[in-house]
Formats: sequence, C-alpha cells, structure tokens
Amino acid sequence: MESNSNNKSQKSNDQKSGQSAKPQTAITPTRDQDYPEWYQQVIKAADLAENSATRGCMVIKPWGYAIWEQIQQTLDRKFKETGHVNAYFPLLIPKSFLEQEAAHVDGFAKECAVVTHHRLEASPDGGLVPAGELEEPFIIRPTSETIIGASYAKWVQSYRDLPILINQWANVMRWEMRTRMFLRTAEFLWQEGHTAHSTAKEAVEETMQMLDVYEWFAHEFMAMPVIKGEKTPGEKFPGAVDTYTIEAMMQDGKALQAGTSHFLGQNFAKASGIKFQTQTGTEELAWTTSWGVSTRLIGGLIMTHSDDDGLICPPRLAPKHVVIIPIYRNDEEKASVLEFCKSVKKELESLRYGHDFIRVELDDRDIRGGEKTWQHIKKGTPLRAEVGPRDVASQSLFVARRDKPHKEKSSFSRADFVSGIAATLDSIHDTLFERAKSYRDAKTKVVSDFNEFKSWFTPKNEDKPEIHGGFALCHWSPNPEDQKEINDKLSSLKVSARCIPLDLPKVSGKCIFTGKPTDVRVYFAKNY
Amino acid sequence: MESNSNNKSQKSNDQKSGQSAKPQTAITPTRDQDYPEWYQQVIKAADLAENSATRGCMVIKPWGYAIWEQIQQTLDRKFKETGHVNAYFPLLIPKSFLEQEAAHVDGFAKECAVVTHHRLEASPDGGLVPAGELEEPFIIRPTSETIIGASYAKWVQSYRDLPILINQWANVMRWEMRTRMFLRTAEFLWQEGHTAHSTAKEAVEETMQMLDVYEWFAHEFMAMPVIKGEKTPGEKFPGAVDTYTIEAMMQDGKALQAGTSHFLGQNFAKASGIKFQTQTGTEELAWTTSWGVSTRLIGGLIMTHSDDDGLICPPRLAPKHVVIIPIYRNDEEKASVLEFCKSVKKELESLRYGHDFIRVELDDRDIRGGEKTWQHIKKGTPLRAEVGPRDVASQSLFVARRDKPHKEKSSFSRADFVSGIAATLDSIHDTLFERAKSYRDAKTKVVSDFNEFKSWFTPKNEDKPEIHGGFALCHWSPNPEDQKEINDKLSSLKVSARCIPLDLPKVSGKCIFTGKPTDVRVYFAKNY
Repeated sequence: MESNSNNKSQKSNDQKSGQSAKPQTAITPTRDQDYPEWYQQVIKAADLAENSATRGCMVIKPWGYAIWEQIQQTLDRKFKETGHVNAYFPLLIPKSFLEQEAAHVDGFAKECAVVTHHRLEASPDGGLVPAGELEEPFIIRPTSETIIGASYAKWVQSYRDLPILINQWANVMRWEMRTRMFLRTAEFLWQEGHTAHSTAKEAVEETMQMLDVYEWFAHEFMAMPVIKGEKTPGEKFPGAVDTYTIEAMMQDGKALQAGTSHFLGQNFAKASGIKFQTQTGTEELAWTTSWGVSTRLIGGLIMTHSDDDGLICPPRLAPKHVVIIPIYRNDEEKASVLEFCKSVKKELESLRYGHDFIRVELDDRDIRGGEKTWQHIKKGTPLRAEVGPRDVASQSLFVARRDKPHKEKSSFSRADFVSGIAATLDSIHDTLFERAKSYRDAKTKVVSDFNEFKSWFTPKNEDKPEIHGGFALCHWSPNPEDQKEINDKLSSLKVSARCIPLDLPKVSGKCIFTGKPTDVRVYFAKNY
Repeated sequence: MESNSNNKSQKSNDQKSGQSAKPQTAITPTRDQDYPEWYQQVIKAADLAENSATRGCMVIKPWGYAIWEQIQQTLDRKFKETGHVNAYFPLLIPKSFLEQEAAHVDGFAKECAVVTHHRLEASPDGGLVPAGELEEPFIIRPTSETIIGASYAKWVQSYRDLPILINQWANVMRWEMRTRMFLRTAEFLWQEGHTAHSTAKEAVEETMQMLDVYEWFAHEFMAMPVIKGEKTPGEKFPGAVDTYTIEAMMQDGKALQAGTSHFLGQNFAKASGIKFQTQTGTEELAWTTSWGVSTRLIGGLIMTHSDDDGLICPPRLAPKHVVIIPIYRNDEEKASVLEFCKSVKKELESLRYGHDFIRVELDDRDIRGGEKTWQHIKKGTPLRAEVGPRDVASQSLFVARRDKPHKEKSSFSRADFVSGIAATLDSIHDTLFERAKSYRDAKTKVVSDFNEFKSWFTPKNEDKPEIHGGFALCHWSPNPEDQKEINDKLSSLKVSARCIPLDLPKVSGKCIFTGKPTDVRVYFAKNY
C-alpha cells in the first residue's frame, strides 16, 4: 500500500484523539529503568494474564489466550502435516511410574504436586479436611513420558505397529519456587509430542524434524530469531540421550529456551517396556522421542518485541491484525463513519492471510479516542486505522503500524489499504524479525578468554544486576571429567551453557575454562 | 449422487474383500445380548479409548480424540459467534474457595482429588514418599465457578465491565466411584462457559441461548435428538437457581444428560464478591451463568448410533468422511488403482463441507482387504469407497454407506460420487437423526398411573436388568413438601426425573406419585 503522507490530517487526528496529553511512554518503568518490572507491566497493560490465588499459577486472560490459540492452531496444523495425530492421556501419574526412570525421578520429584486424598470431609472444628487417603499417591504430570510409555507398551507388539506419532495438548505442573508469568509458572499449557520408532536413525530424524518445525515456527510466526543447538550433558532433559533446543535472546540479553526436542534412545522404552518383534523375529526395545513448546513462548514473544509503549504482537500470531477506530462528534457523523468502517471491515475479512483471513476488530466502544488508541497500542495490534468524517469523504484511512513510533501515521486510500494489507503485515513481521536479529547479533560476542567471559557477564552497575553483555560463543571442552570445574565457574557467574549450535562449523580452539584443545563451541548466557 | 446398482460387481468385490468369511456381526456381544458390554466392545473395536493405570481415567486414543477435536471446533466457532472469548484459569482450587458456597461444597467435596504435598522424597525404606506439606490443600477443579468467580470479582467494578462472556476448554476431575469410559470418568475434558451480567434478565437469556446452542449442536452435528428441559430441584447443579439440560435417549432406553446450562442467580456472585456499581450509582451483585458439555458427548454419540458392527460416526463430526480402499493383485494394477484413488482423494479434498473440506483417508496399508474394510466399518467412517482395476477402467467407485447394512454397496461414476458426496453425507446425517428419533419416540410413553410407571421401569427379564420401557412423561407435583415421597418412590425403581420439557405445553392432570393436581409434566428415565 502506498502512503499519501499528509501532515495536516495527521495533526488534526492527533488532536482529536488527545494523544498529546499522554506521557512519553505508556509503560512505567521502561525497559532501561527496570526490565523485570517492565515485563510485568507490559503483561498488565496488554491485559494478557494475571497472578491467581493459586500459588504460582496465572490466569490467562482473553487477549493472552487468543495468542495461545493462534500458536496452537499453527503448530497443530504443522504437526498433522508431518504425520502426527493428537490423543489424550491422564493428568495423574501413579507415583510408581515416575520411579521407573532414575534420571527422570531426580529431575521431577523435587517439585511436583502430589494428590494423596480423594475427598474432603467436615472436621470437628469446622471447615473441611482431606479424607479418603489413597493407597498410592498420584502426581500431577510434570511431563508425560512415563504414563504415555505405559500405553505404548500395550500398543506395540510388532515392527508393524511402529512408528507411533502422537501429540498431546495439555496442562502440566511443576512446583517451581520462583515463578514469573508465562516464563515459569507452576501450571502451564503446552504440547508434548511422544513418538516411538523401530530404529535409532528414524527416532533421531524425528527429533531433528521437530526441532526444525520449532525453528520454522519461531522465525516465521513469532518473528523471533533462535539458535538451534544441542544441549550440553548438564542441561539435558532428565532421562534423554540428547536434548536439542531453540534459544532466543530477550531484550535484557538473557536467553530463553523456547522449545526442546529430545532423542530418548531406549531409556524410556526400557522403563516402560515398549518392546517389538523385528522383521527377523527378534525382540527389541523401541526408540522414542519427545518434544514440546509451552505458553512460555508468549513470554518470549513479549520480551523479544515489546517496547516502552507495551506489547508488539507479531502479525501472524496477532488475534486481530487491524483495529479500526471510528472517530465522530455527533450522530450524523457517527452513522456515516460507522457505515464506512463496517464496509472496510467486511472487505478485509474476506481476504485470506496465511491459513486464515484478515482478522479485524471494529472498536466502536463509547470511550475517549485517546484512551482507546492507547489501549490498542499497549495490546500490540499490528495495525491501527482511524476513520473520521474527512476520511470517509476522501474514502481513506489514517493508519499506524505498531512497529513504528506511535505518532507516525499515514493516510491511505481505502483501495490501497485493502490491497496492500497482507504485504504490510508481512513487512511488520520482517521488521520485527530483523530488529530482533540485529539486536541479538550486536549483543553476541565470540569470547576466547575466561577473564573476558567474566567481564562480559558481570553487571557494570550494581543497581541493575540484570544488565550484562548478552550471549558469548566460546570453545568448551566436552570431556566428562572437566564438567565439574566448568560448571563451578559458570554457576559463580549465574551463567549457563545454552547449546552447541548446529548451524556453525567446527573450529579448533581452546576451552576457555580448562585451556584444553577442543573443536566444540557453546553459546553461554544468563537465562530464564 | 445416483447409483448404478450392479449386482455382478457387488458380488465380485465382496469376494475380493473376503467379507463372507466374517461372523454375523463384528461386535460380540450384540446390543441384545449384553448392552453394557457391547458398549465397551464398540469403543475397543473403533479404537476410541481404553482404561489407564490411573484409577477411573481413560486414554483417549487418536480416533476418539479426533472426534473430540471436531466437537471442539464446531462448538468453539459457535461460542465465538455468540460473543464469547476463551481464557484459562488454574487447575488447582484453594480449599477455602470451595467452601464459599454451601450447596457447591455438598455437591463436590465428597469426590475430589486433593493435593496436599509439593514434592516426593526418598524414604528410608526406599521408594518415594510425599513431602513438603502444603499449608492449605488444593483440590483439582471439579468445575471452576469459584476460581473464576475470584477473578471476575477483581475485574468487575462498574456496569460498564459487564457482561463478561468467557469460555474455558479444560480438564476437570471428579473422583467417581463407578466409572465408564466417556460417560463417567474421574478426569474428563470439557468446556465450561462462565458469564456475568448486570441483570437477571440478561443472565437468563444467556442461559437459554446456550441451551439452544447445545440443542442445535446435538441435532445438527451429533444427529442425536434431545429433549430440552428444566431440571427439577433435586437434580439441579449444586449452587444453581435453575439448571437446564438436554437429555438424549440411548439404545437401552436410558437417558443421558448431554449438556447443561445453569442460571446461578447471585449465589456465586455473593460467594465470590462479584459486585458492580450500577448506572444509578448503587452497588449490586452480578448475575452469573455457567454451561458445559464434555467428552461424555462421545459416549452419547456411540450409544445413540452404533450397531452390532461397531461405531456409526455422524458425518459432520467424523474425522474422515470417506475412506478410499484400493484393491489390486499385482504391481501393475496397484499403480493404476493408486493413481486413480489419489486423484479422487485430491478432488474430494477440494470440496467444502460445512466449515471444513471433505475429509478423506486413502487406506493403502498392506493388509487383507476384508480385515481393512471391517476396521473401517467398526470405526464408523460414514462412506467407504472401494476401487479395483475394473472400477478404474469404468472411472467409478464401489460405495457403501455406514448407515446401511454392510453388504449394501453401489457403483457410482466418479463424477456422480464427487458431485453428490455432500448430499450423501447430509442424507446419512438425516437418516441417523430420524432413526434415533423414531426409536426414542417408540420408547417414550405418557404414563398417568404409578402402577403403570412401575411396570414401565421394571425389567421383564431378571437376566437383563437393564431392559425396561424407556422414557415416561408424567404429571408431577412441584410442591417442596412432596419431594421426599416422590424421590423415595423413584429411587426404589432406580429412576430419576430428567427434566420438565420446555417444548411441551402445560396440561392439567394429577401427579402420579401424590395424586395432587398439577400442570407440570416431567420426563422420567433410568439414566447414565
């Protein structure tokens, strides 16, 4: 769409909507002032979620949930295109199941919700107390490898029963001590894929395929650049042979593990007894994988794109692509303005965008124009189109892009706006992706010396302990005997190994922690 | 589509697929032999679900879950069209929340999963034991009025904040003593709508609107005729002012409560403190509703339509509308048959049906034709289309409808089959609906005398205690003082009041239990 920039009209609409009375930024504090608090305030201002009375659990409010629905629909379609089907397994896992896989127990037993009783009864002192103690307690699933493995063990007899390619959309629970909305909550929503195969090769291919799906999703829908890599042994999923991850940089330079795909080898097949008869008649354990992303992605989306005016929702996941805001002073104006707005809405909604149509909100609520506009800025709707009587007269709309400063608006003819909207949304997507990528690249450093590493991760300002360099790419020794020394050094700096990048070539060098020669490089970062 | 009935071809395809070797029915026992066991066997044969290691919880297998996905998509679209948005609230409810509403506690405290600890730790005798006891236990939501009410109390200040129209898709848990797959399981999946309004009138309208949505869905998608009615006081939702229901008859004459919509008055608003300032500045409690359907619908779908050969899936909810089964004897035949099948599949998949496209499975697995055909009969796919070399030569398909006897097949030209498939699916839907309605009407009796009522509900055969008359429509006294006598008589017969039908006129008569004059009539039935 081509803009007919029009300064006069711009000024006049600004006055109408009363934006000049607003402070410099809509979010207080700003990112620079207090990044963690800024994050909470963006969530509040965009009406995405809030804390609940249940410890560590959030309420996902309609706008936040609508983003999750977009995430679900997009991924679900891709999972089905890659041959998976959905199913549903029990929420409660018998304690004995968790005990089957030693590393798995270690990983999850320390923070899980335990169901011990099956009713409440009146106590003599009033109130209700737990009663009906269970013979065996259950835990609320922190992940479902063991309970799903029990089913697969029943379903698989022969190589003909393989592969099994199942995904589950579910809630899970991990009793985290420190929680933060979306990023780390006791209960969260996710999808967990669980597959079983007759060969290691096929299971590894599945693991990598799903990692690629996650990278594709992060790039093409979240506009969030990610590094695809393999976890170091200390950061693997409890019970996995290999864990692969996509890691994104947030605007405070910290890393967010945004999705993981695990090659589980035969560990869980052994624990659950998933055996099959091969073509030659021998009996073998199956090879399994699991992979998942969660509502944490929404935290990543917020921290990647938002600015000091609130959320910037990447267009392909935005619940509404455009909000149309009618502006009028009396009933006569109202009638013609609303008629025009409704007609534009209808026309836009008939246009395909991705697998859906253009999603339009017509906000004709009876509140002040400035307040209304700011609500949509804070909620991150990619496009805002104001329509006043003069716009109707000229058959045009006064349009702002959320990826640009809020005062930058342009007038478009209706025809240009409609015909160009898909390209405009794509352009916003590209801008967000490139901006995030440039930011990440600028805050990523190749570090070849431990002192430099320390300085990169040490806050320069005691008042802002979270401000540090960003990502560091360093040579790292994979030797098991070196890991204690490496991990001690890392934990003293509150830094962790994020991943061994898959898309970088091997280069000879020296481990920055031990000085030993190695060709393995690792991205290090502070992390969520 | 017009059939070119062709007996020669029919015989030949029957031989090819080896159906003659099959027993009379695919499901053992039949409905007549043992209805409850038949139900379990249909679920198994259709691969819908199975019991799990977690007491009372089932695994919903891919075919069963795919039906649930169809149910979800259809209802979700309708909820949004009627102005609702989705959100998500915590799984765990603080015990004190449940205690807020007296009737609600009575209804749910007796069978709920109680979380009392937040970790497991190694015990001295080996194994893990619950540790980290919580100060206040949580219960896994059996329904979410209280936890959602706590949020609404925060969100609502003024009449301008109302109405709130929110739906949640979630899992819930009720520790039922006797469970039966889909119909009554400890954990089940459902949607629960929770709305808050500024007037009683608006809340009642919402309650009735959603009841109508459920009736529409049962009739138009499940092909399951339902009676829309109001619950008698003894059968209301714990804490509701009025409960409305849709009741369906299963093939054993028992009733299934398939969906409920509750007008909660100000009971839960009072318990949760949902108050608002009115336009005149006074403070009032909000009026709330809740409404839900669950995976129980799948039980209703099975018990309404299935026959002694397995599931019959109503077309508009069928995960696949048609399965194409290629039949060939050698590689040369295989190539041409598969090419034809793929081309038909592609053509069908480009046709719209409802809000989706025609959903096609091409089953080219390398298993015997007879076994393959029977799998699809048992899974209830509405249309089966066999294609052999002669069908390719004549550009035709050999088609069977699942609502007709399995040997009844007809040859259709490809063009007729494709152009007629939507009408054929609609015709199957209509047949299923009419068949179920005729069955229900034949097993429903107007009863005006208690002896007749007793005889209607008394099994004639001691070996088959479940076989009885069906539904009875009777005059019933609504007087509170009569309810004990009525309920004693009902429970001795294991019969319950299902609903006061909304679509029947009031007629004067005498209560069959008390002899008192009344114009209220109630449907009675044994029920799931």
